[in-house]
Amino acid sequence: MQEPPEAEPAVPCCPPLTSAELSEADARTMAAMFKALSDPVRLRLFSRVASHPGGEACVCDIQDVGVSQPTVSHHLKKLREAGLLTSERRGTWVYYRVAPGVLAAMAAMLTRHS
Amino acid sequence: MQEPPEAEPAVPCCPPLTSAELSEADARTMAAMFKALSDPVRLRLFSRVASHPGGEACVCDIQDVGVSQPTVSHHLKKLREAGLLTSERRGTWVYYRVAPGVLAAMAAMLTRHS
Repeated sequence: MQEPPEAEPAVPCCPPLTSAELSEADARTMAAMFKALSDPVRLRLFSRVASHPGGEACVCDIQDVGVSQPTVSHHLKKLREAGLLTSERRGTWVYYRVAPGVLAAMAAMLTRHS
Repeated sequence: MQEPPEAEPAVPCCPPLTSAELSEADARTMAAMFKALSDPVRLRLFSRVASHPGGEACVCDIQDVGVSQPTVSHHLKKLREAGLLTSERRGTWVYYRVAPGVLAAMAAMLTRHS
C-alpha cells in the first residue's frame, strides 16, 4: 500500500531518553511536545481526537469537556502548533486528526533500548 | 522469566490515548507526568539519569547542565514528586534512578492499540 505523503513522521526527533543524554536542541523539541500534553483538558481533547472512530473528529464532536468554546479552540491551536494534531476545514466545521507518526515517535523516545 | 518485584509499574494509570477518551482523573495523573518532562533542562537531567551506566546516577554526575546547583535540585525534586525518579542517599551523595515501570507505562499510553 502506498503511504500517503502526510504519513511521514511529523517528529523526526529524538533518540530514546535511555540511550544517551539528550542534546539541548532535542530536549527543546521534545519538551515542547510534552508541554502540549501537560494540561488535563488539553490531554482529554487530544484523547477524544485520537480515540474517535476513523481517527478524525469534528470540533463539534469534542468540545464538551467542561470548558468554554474559546478555551477548546485555544487548546486545539496549541496541539496543532506542537505538531500533535493536524486540522482541515470542510464546510462549516474544522476536523482534527492526530499527526501521523507523532505518537509512535513519542513512545519510541520513552522506550528503553535493549 | 520471573519479574523482579521492582518491575511493577509505578504508574497504573492510564489506558492508551487512542483507545478511549481519558477520564478526568486519568487525565490529571497523566498530565502531571508529561508536565514533569515539559522543561528542556528537566528533560536533559532525566535523560542523564536514564542513560547513565547501571541506570543510576549520583547527583554529582549529572549537575553539569548549565544551570545552578539549586536549580538542578529543584528539577530533580519535581521529577521525584511526579513519580519519574526515585532517590537514595548513600554517604555524601544522593543517587537517582528512573522509577521502575514509569517509562514503559508512559510509552504504552502513547501506543496505538491495534
